[in-house]
Amino acid sequence: MSKHATLVFSRHGESEWNVANIFTGWVDVDLSEKGLGEAKGAGELLKAEGLEIDVAYTSFLKRAIKTCNLALEAADQYYVPVNKTWRLNERMYGGLTGLDKKETVKKHGADQVQIWRRSFDIPPPALEKENKYHPCHEAKYADLDPKDLPDTECLKDTIARVMPYWEETIAPALKAGKTVFVAAHGNSIRAIVKMIEGLSDDVIPGLEIPTGTPLVYELDKDLKPLPTSLAVEPLKFGRYLGDAEKIRAAAEAVKNQTKVG
Amino acid sequence: MSKHATLVFSRHGESEWNVANIFTGWVDVDLSEKGLGEAKGAGELLKAEGLEIDVAYTSFLKRAIKTCNLALEAADQYYVPVNKTWRLNERMYGGLTGLDKKETVKKHGADQVQIWRRSFDIPPPALEKENKYHPCHEAKYADLDPKDLPDTECLKDTIARVMPYWEETIAPALKAGKTVFVAAHGNSIRAIVKMIEGLSDDVIPGLEIPTGTPLVYELDKDLKPLPTSLAVEPLKFGRYLGDAEKIRAAAEAVKNQTKVG
Repeated sequence: MSKHATLVFSRHGESEWNVANIFTGWVDVDLSEKGLGEAKGAGELLKAEGLEIDVAYTSFLKRAIKTCNLALEAADQYYVPVNKTWRLNERMYGGLTGLDKKETVKKHGADQVQIWRRSFDIPPPALEKENKYHPCHEAKYADLDPKDLPDTECLKDTIARVMPYWEETIAPALKAGKTVFVAAHGNSIRAIVKMIEGLSDDVIPGLEIPTGTPLVYELDKDLKPLPTSLAVEPLKFGRYLGDAEKIRAAAEAVKNQTKVG
Repeated sequence: MSKHATLVFSRHGESEWNVANIFTGWVDVDLSEKGLGEAKGAGELLKAEGLEIDVAYTSFLKRAIKTCNLALEAADQYYVPVNKTWRLNERMYGGLTGLDKKETVKKHGADQVQIWRRSFDIPPPALEKENKYHPCHEAKYADLDPKDLPDTECLKDTIARVMPYWEETIAPALKAGKTVFVAAHGNSIRAIVKMIEGLSDDVIPGLEIPTGTPLVYELDKDLKPLPTSLAVEPLKFGRYLGDAEKIRAAAEAVKNQTKVG
């Protein structure tokens, strides 16, 4: 197997609702100051690695789009084509959308919240269409088939709507030998990483992808990942760019967000 | 004639080399702080006008790409697809690239510089390939046919390389009834405006398009512009969004850049 294409992920950095500790999902909140810095940092890591991106993909949510644009700019590759799709959006958090994470733990119990956050196939309750955060109220989804617009999603549901875009758009670019950059969200990145790494339904919900640290896969012509000694468990093929200690600390910080202090 | 499509231009705002009074052309300088504000202001004007963009086009130069991104974000339309092309780049300024505007006037005389800046078909001397500012040294033009890479351009040359993109990409989007946003440069915008307005070779070089103030055309299904009472001479069909006095002052400021104080 020899290297044919390169796939680089960047999970968006800290958002304003990460700071406020609120379930976000499809709500279009902005990056925090720290998140802006993480996006630039990701681009600097791409540049330091000598990665030359051919095409970028991102979601319809500004925290990912901005991460994509700022990273490409910091990598001196601002002219690279950027494609935006709702299919790379974060998992739609249903009735949890807009709720304070610790309040939700107090109300429903840590076990129930952990199930909603980290089970593979149990979605939170549906978000009612009357709720101001329901995506049916947003112009950017007006062209979607209403049956594609979720009221809630478990990770399995997110994977199901990410994969058609992978098959139809991202995989063909990789088969053409391109270096592809995907700036997206924890769960839309999990969807693709699960498939590439062959991770089980049990393992993938617990994969904490750190922010601001690009995750790189080298792929053969059949899009099978090439092994690397730099992969961090549970990954076998993906390697993070950047400082190893920072990467571990960042993953831990995400895990701790629903712990009631 | 009834309205079928809408075409909106935004000329990028002040760049770092506008401030330094240096001929820029294809050199990839950033926006100044003022330029960043102008880009956001353009987006706020789009939003206030209720314009909903379907697709955006910009150049390979960051001052236009950033104007495009910031304007779309300020208009709450950051998810709109953005297409980037070298064909919408600023006029390539040849041997003037990187030179101080007033020094160039002192050296060659105001009349000669005015000919290079504002004649329709007389290009400045060629930029030598050894010059660090020649685009042949930049990765983003590596995929271009070398014969497409200019050493210098007059406005007529710029028009000749903008038009294939208009015909193949922008015009079809308009014929499909879309609202199109073009965030570009003084001369790549002149190229399209000349054709739409039917302006003569004598008039177009003197058209000063203000920055930060979107220029709007409503077009029929044959892409003929619909008349408006709000057009400012020499335009008959395009109307600027924003404050009329500011627009006139901004156009005057561009004219004065080569006046030796």
